[in-house]
Amino acid sequence: MNNRMMSLALFLFPGQHLGAWRLPDAIPEVDLGIEHYVRAAKLAEAAKLDAIFFEDQAAIPRSNNIMNGDTYGAANPRAMHFDPMMLLPALAMATTHLGLAATSTASFNEPYNLARRFASIDFISNGRAGWNLVTSFNESEAQNFGLDAHLEHSLRYERASEFIDVVNGLWDSWDEGAVIRDKKSGVYFDVEKMHFLKHEGKFFKVRGPLTMGRSPQGRPVIFQAGSSEPGRELAARTADVVFTLQTDMKASRAFREDIRQRAVRFGRDPDKIKILPGITPIVGKTDQEAEDFRTRMRDLIPEELAITHLAPHSGGLNFRDYDLNGPMPDLPETNAGKSHRDAIINLARGENLSILQTARRFAEGSYMKLVGAPTTIADTMQEWLDNDACDGFLAVPTHFPQGTEDFVSQVVPELQRRGIFRKEYTGKHLRDHLGVEKHT
Amino acid sequence: MNNRMMSLALFLFPGQHLGAWRLPDAIPEVDLGIEHYVRAAKLAEAAKLDAIFFEDQAAIPRSNNIMNGDTYGAANPRAMHFDPMMLLPALAMATTHLGLAATSTASFNEPYNLARRFASIDFISNGRAGWNLVTSFNESEAQNFGLDAHLEHSLRYERASEFIDVVNGLWDSWDEGAVIRDKKSGVYFDVEKMHFLKHEGKFFKVRGPLTMGRSPQGRPVIFQAGSSEPGRELAARTADVVFTLQTDMKASRAFREDIRQRAVRFGRDPDKIKILPGITPIVGKTDQEAEDFRTRMRDLIPEELAITHLAPHSGGLNFRDYDLNGPMPDLPETNAGKSHRDAIINLARGENLSILQTARRFAEGSYMKLVGAPTTIADTMQEWLDNDACDGFLAVPTHFPQGTEDFVSQVVPELQRRGIFRKEYTGKHLRDHLGVEKHT
Repeated sequence: MNNRMMSLALFLFPGQHLGAWRLPDAIPEVDLGIEHYVRAAKLAEAAKLDAIFFEDQAAIPRSNNIMNGDTYGAANPRAMHFDPMMLLPALAMATTHLGLAATSTASFNEPYNLARRFASIDFISNGRAGWNLVTSFNESEAQNFGLDAHLEHSLRYERASEFIDVVNGLWDSWDEGAVIRDKKSGVYFDVEKMHFLKHEGKFFKVRGPLTMGRSPQGRPVIFQAGSSEPGRELAARTADVVFTLQTDMKASRAFREDIRQRAVRFGRDPDKIKILPGITPIVGKTDQEAEDFRTRMRDLIPEELAITHLAPHSGGLNFRDYDLNGPMPDLPETNAGKSHRDAIINLARGENLSILQTARRFAEGSYMKLVGAPTTIADTMQEWLDNDACDGFLAVPTHFPQGTEDFVSQVVPELQRRGIFRKEYTGKHLRDHLGVEKHT
Repeated sequence: MNNRMMSLALFLFPGQHLGAWRLPDAIPEVDLGIEHYVRAAKLAEAAKLDAIFFEDQAAIPRSNNIMNGDTYGAANPRAMHFDPMMLLPALAMATTHLGLAATSTASFNEPYNLARRFASIDFISNGRAGWNLVTSFNESEAQNFGLDAHLEHSLRYERASEFIDVVNGLWDSWDEGAVIRDKKSGVYFDVEKMHFLKHEGKFFKVRGPLTMGRSPQGRPVIFQAGSSEPGRELAARTADVVFTLQTDMKASRAFREDIRQRAVRFGRDPDKIKILPGITPIVGKTDQEAEDFRTRMRDLIPEELAITHLAPHSGGLNFRDYDLNGPMPDLPETNAGKSHRDAIINLARGENLSILQTARRFAEGSYMKLVGAPTTIADTMQEWLDNDACDGFLAVPTHFPQGTEDFVSQVVPELQRRGIFRKEYTGKHLRDHLGVEKHT
């Protein structure tokens, strides 16, 4: 027991569970409905969560994108989403303390634009902005940006590494207190506190400075989720928060320790980098009720949609050539992200599932399912925290609003009772909530 | 007299007047202060304006950017601004009818990203989004995006022309009613109503579709401000609203007629394209009071700042080598935008102004000054409307909040009394307010 407090972020991910949206009380319209996002953010803030987070892909899911040349074709709910960066200024107006974070790809944006947008959000939210750096992992995205195939994996990370240095450099291009707007003297800002970046690297050439003084946090919070070797190196060097797909406590502890050791090698305080495994809480009055609820939601996943959704990870195999009730075949390597392929193989092999069973399980979402009564879920979360397997969690409910409401109104209060999650916000900025390094 | 109604947009441009921010009741903090933007948007909505608009440059002003290698160096207030696109979702939450428009450059963005962002804003605002397409005109911006100099003028417009076709194509990539989210059948959207764009052009290769169904307006409103030959062609073919710098009614009438004739050649209804000259209203109880107020604000422009601000248009001349109270020397041709250089020369020669007088006049902002009592200002606006010199105006006050308050509380009611501006919103979307073509 170490009595550490945990960090908790809500990941509102419409369509993550490909069946739960069909529940009678589910509101699938959350995907494009700002009023529902506002409701979710207010729920998260009332529960004193660190942040609300939204992922992004700059393309419809590959399963639907290859559909015309494929035998599969069930419409994937995950096709429907905003550029989530655009949600953050809106949610800033509806909340006062909650951190606001969104994915934006380093592969198809310019660092000057991205730095300026997240600095703008940091001002608009009074210091609550966070950016999840991804390098994008699929060809559907590449095809929206002039490329036939994606940049090779290690090149993507090399580019991302330079990208984030440029972004940080731009965020640092104005010192604290530079903007004085002195009516008497007529001096608007102190030119000595403005710095040209003059970056010239392998991928970028950026002069700077930004068009605004130093933002409230100095630097918006950096989130990452890389699990590959270059992904871990980049996270250890530059991330404040690392999201991770983990299902085994010992493996998660090893992952966390690995990131921390790498961080030390980069001269960082390892306690300033927070490792948050993703969890999907499925809550019931009893453990059995929760298990039954999970099964009920899984049964709502249309077979065609489940297979459609799995197809892009088949490495070219057409699952229709196989007996869907037979065992999962070996999946070839691809240039795409590795973590999903590994997760699918582990799932099928670990529990000896058929192709269809695997597909339905995969269509429940990728994150560790914590299924049970609130105390059961809290037990697991506490165990992981106490065993240094994490610094908190990214909670990804199955559907809205019930999945979110169950978590914030039943699980979070249990964590608060146990003294492992805050009852009130004590800081103002997202960096305060997370306990990561400050840049002001 | 034709009893046309006019369109009115508020252009909130912190720092446009380089002296008025020093007035005792001015709030220069509006530049990075969301609460002030909210106040401005609410004032504009209460006055039933069509839209609030924000410009952008993805760089600090050239005057400050070249400062290190120059003898000038007064900090330019215009250096301080957000990426204005990030303001729109926030202001959508504080308003219900007001149109929300911002500049975003076609030269340093990807069309897929831009289309998705403005479609997101259109959803978040329930059909009130507008995008001002610019090609960017200065080298300071180019230097933040890997270039030493800017793309050649006609190439920029050729690229912008393809850019907007891609954006429109993406906005049309989902038919109305495609997203059904049918819980019973498990069908989320109608795949027959989703269209791949598969654009392959000279500059872009974009597969599509967008990651969201058709937005409330179908297509967010397109604003442009080009005055060159390719700029007029692009506007006539693709813009809903054209902003323009005009100071002479006959010239403005000729400009409007030119754009309308070009629109007809592109098969468009010329009444669906709105020409809005920029005006800076300076309001007093009497005409004399307004003139005195203009002089008082102009005297607040620091000499050093006025000269700094003029420097980028000097074509390499150092004004400090000249007598600032002497006549304006001939200005060499440059590769930068020509309209500002021409405006400066016309100003100096036309009124026989000294260098410093010219600099101070230029630092009052580029838009036509309407100076006088509310009825005087309304007279001019009505005269321009009645003589088909415009379809309305883009009002650019000198400072916040007074400049905005004077316009909406004194000038707008006078226009309403005369029956040439709406007293209530009759539509829901920005396209309704403007009376431009609908895409749903």
